[in-house]
Amino acid sequence: MWKFIGAAAASLTMLSFIPQIARSFRTKHVKDVSPVMLFQLFLGVLLWIIYGVYRKDPIIIIANAVTLSTLAVLIFMYFSYGVKQKGQE
Amino acid sequence: MWKFIGAAAASLTMLSFIPQIARSFRTKHVKDVSPVMLFQLFLGVLLWIIYGVYRKDPIIIIANAVTLSTLAVLIFMYFSYGVKQKGQE
Repeated sequence: MWKFIGAAAASLTMLSFIPQIARSFRTKHVKDVSPVMLFQLFLGVLLWIIYGVYRKDPIIIIANAVTLSTLAVLIFMYFSYGVKQKGQE
Repeated sequence: MWKFIGAAAASLTMLSFIPQIARSFRTKHVKDVSPVMLFQLFLGVLLWIIYGVYRKDPIIIIANAVTLSTLAVLIFMYFSYGVKQKGQE
């Protein structure tokens, strides 16, 4: 029961940027998303991975590696759509 | 050194929605932010708090309580600005 709650908590937060990627991909708009938030999260999640490696904790490493890869996609989208929107306006 | 990395990781991710709140407050726009992401994170972070209470881990509880409160602000902004924008367009 408690393991299930922990797993659900980890999955929901780990995969939280998937709906943001889906929305931005559909609308081709990201301008209301804060780039400071994206970079702050990227750095924070990267430090979590380093900390997980030190603690030899595979859960910390895997959860944050998944989040890092979705964040990388979002940052890429931010720059590709951001540049396009500037050109169109 | 490792404690510092862990603390930096926790602080950066815990406070990651502050720049998003600041940006949305400044621009009064949130429409590119995914509401599914916000609710998924809210539920995930809430489950983390419940898990933290069960594990009696104050770090998990405090970190996620801070994130939950910033998420609550963002969800409130999403609805108040979202409704305004619909009315203006």
